[in-house]
Amino acid sequence: VATARRGARVLSSGPGSRVAAPDPWLKGAGPFHLGRIALERFPFAAWRRLLARHARRLDESLLGYGDPAGLGELREAIAAYVRTARGVVCEADQVLVVNGSQQALDLVSRVLLEPGSRVFFEEPGYWGARDAFVAAGARLVPVPVDSEGLDVKAGIALCPSAQAAYVTPSHQFPTGVLMSASRRLELLHWARTSGAWIVEDDYDSEYRYESLPVAALQGLDRDARVLYVGTFSKVLAPGLRMGYLVVPPDLVERFRVVRWSMDICPPALLQAVLADFLAEGSFARHLRRMRALYRERRAALVDSLRNELGGLLRVEGERAGLHLLAVLAGGGNDRELAYRAAEDGLRTLPLSSCYLAAAKRQGFVLGYGGLDVPEIPSAVRRLARVLRDARASRREASAG
Amino acid sequence: VATARRGARVLSSGPGSRVAAPDPWLKGAGPFHLGRIALERFPFAAWRRLLARHARRLDESLLGYGDPAGLGELREAIAAYVRTARGVVCEADQVLVVNGSQQALDLVSRVLLEPGSRVFFEEPGYWGARDAFVAAGARLVPVPVDSEGLDVKAGIALCPSAQAAYVTPSHQFPTGVLMSASRRLELLHWARTSGAWIVEDDYDSEYRYESLPVAALQGLDRDARVLYVGTFSKVLAPGLRMGYLVVPPDLVERFRVVRWSMDICPPALLQAVLADFLAEGSFARHLRRMRALYRERRAALVDSLRNELGGLLRVEGERAGLHLLAVLAGGGNDRELAYRAAEDGLRTLPLSSCYLAAAKRQGFVLGYGGLDVPEIPSAVRRLARVLRDARASRREASAG
Repeated sequence: VATARRGARVLSSGPGSRVAAPDPWLKGAGPFHLGRIALERFPFAAWRRLLARHARRLDESLLGYGDPAGLGELREAIAAYVRTARGVVCEADQVLVVNGSQQALDLVSRVLLEPGSRVFFEEPGYWGARDAFVAAGARLVPVPVDSEGLDVKAGIALCPSAQAAYVTPSHQFPTGVLMSASRRLELLHWARTSGAWIVEDDYDSEYRYESLPVAALQGLDRDARVLYVGTFSKVLAPGLRMGYLVVPPDLVERFRVVRWSMDICPPALLQAVLADFLAEGSFARHLRRMRALYRERRAALVDSLRNELGGLLRVEGERAGLHLLAVLAGGGNDRELAYRAAEDGLRTLPLSSCYLAAAKRQGFVLGYGGLDVPEIPSAVRRLARVLRDARASRREASAG
Repeated sequence: VATARRGARVLSSGPGSRVAAPDPWLKGAGPFHLGRIALERFPFAAWRRLLARHARRLDESLLGYGDPAGLGELREAIAAYVRTARGVVCEADQVLVVNGSQQALDLVSRVLLEPGSRVFFEEPGYWGARDAFVAAGARLVPVPVDSEGLDVKAGIALCPSAQAAYVTPSHQFPTGVLMSASRRLELLHWARTSGAWIVEDDYDSEYRYESLPVAALQGLDRDARVLYVGTFSKVLAPGLRMGYLVVPPDLVERFRVVRWSMDICPPALLQAVLADFLAEGSFARHLRRMRALYRERRAALVDSLRNELGGLLRVEGERAGLHLLAVLAGGGNDRELAYRAAEDGLRTLPLSSCYLAAAKRQGFVLGYGGLDVPEIPSAVRRLARVLRDARASRREASAG
């Protein structure tokens, strides 16, 4: 241990070493944190009842090694849910239960990519997916996102031979854009003709506040090129570590083998509880309640931002999900501002940190999932103060 | 899907693709299965009580994203346990809670290895570790195991520049050998002078039937070169997916970052229950009971094998763990025999499948963790019949 403390030792310089550590000041769970949801509205009563039931029934069936793809009844329940709610075309045996969507992305990278594989990556995009692909040694090709989503033609021009594309078509992270129908068809056409894979991350598509949810891209795929990723972290609770991956039928066995090599199988008890929660209809009821709740939170945040910061920040993106993008209308250094906001306990994500190349725009990705309506005005006022103080000190500096 | 069914499509040819699928006939959970333990003796009452308690208490603290290294109270309890029971030198903040030892091996591979890294691998050795390292792109160097464990000098002669060594010093898998003190010191010396890592997999060291458990290799390490892996799959239940990894202090942060990129953090509820189970002393009591139980099972299996198969099979290895090695005294094709045994519902693992290079010896790795004493004689008689029938048909074939 003495040696260890002398200084940083040489670790691998391999793919795993290229996973970036988060900014040290991005700590804590203050207002606007993207990982926070309304946990105070978690369906405690139903889960306490189901957990107690499964605790009483606990027997050998839940204690041995399980199927690497997960518990049969949960796979059935998930398949039924994504077919009905998301328009995903699948049978239960195409579903793999995973420890949240992050493991789905990791698993996909392991099975389909190799060191050096090129992947279309939304620019700006989601850092968790970036980390999973980079850890597999993939080379990410930043492909611009415009008002229709990933610019497929630009991607093809940049790297026609990419092996995969990562997209968030229902609610692009972080811009909130909905991918247009024509772009979806273009992307599928490219995948079919070039033999590439599409990884569709449908992380918060359950929440749309102005219209019915838009069906998943996977439902349009006639060539089994789409890997569909979903999660219960946004619609139930991240601490359960429950997500799913729907893969084409001929890939199931390979995914099962590679998942075994990663951590064998998901834990059984929580799968059994979740399967019951879905099957008895409690999940559908919970989702309806949460949709109404988050609609209110979003509306309150948008109002507050307009009132307090109308001149400085412009809200973008669909009325959907658990976060919004607030672009710095007159430019600015979003990292420096987010750092100052963090000193005041606010947990904003600078938009520039979502870019692989130089940021085209500056702004903040603001989560409202964990912000109760009465808290919103004061959180926004605190953010407004940070931005105004920074502007004032910039003016002083340039004047002096 | 139509396209998908036309034939196997091209997946990655990268590291993940090199993870081997298990033999298709190695299915089911028949007698001698290595993954089976005495689940009928699981501490149901204590777990039902603790699960019910945590279900009642369920609150937001267990539902949000957690520390990638695991719940603080569980890390404390594990650190206290491995210090006392295994002689591991560590503080709680060096412990990472993982989804079973397989994830520990995967995580270690990701952080410390890169494609092409050379790793000393016990020959014969454990296929789960092989899969994890191969999935990271490592090149395994098969290093012979003799009656003192890994032959360190042979390893150095084969590949002096290896970046890591994987060992099971307390109870080598599959031979059951205990690594000698001098080999432990040789291995540590090599790691220190060459800057290599040692991955110590202590998967079933709690069970020694003739003497006190032998302390972990990690406790002898003065240079922070050992990554220590443990699991609750053998001592409690595999379906809980609970294991741990103890890493040198200066590596904790890197492990935390890479684990985040894999699946963020372990599920909280089961960690809270397990922490209580350890802290209240129930685990220590359970372990004492199980040690007595498996000692009986082992003795009964050894007796039965001597009675029924004394001339054909030679039992090897320490009186420890949950499996033994039965070597085919006169040689033979263990794969073909294991296949025939599988047709009869027996789940023996052919020794030859544990070799990376050509097998030096043939035999069977037999698990007795899941075999109740009264079942043992008939299971052994079934195995004896398979071996005798095979011998008889071989004689007929060579006579005819």
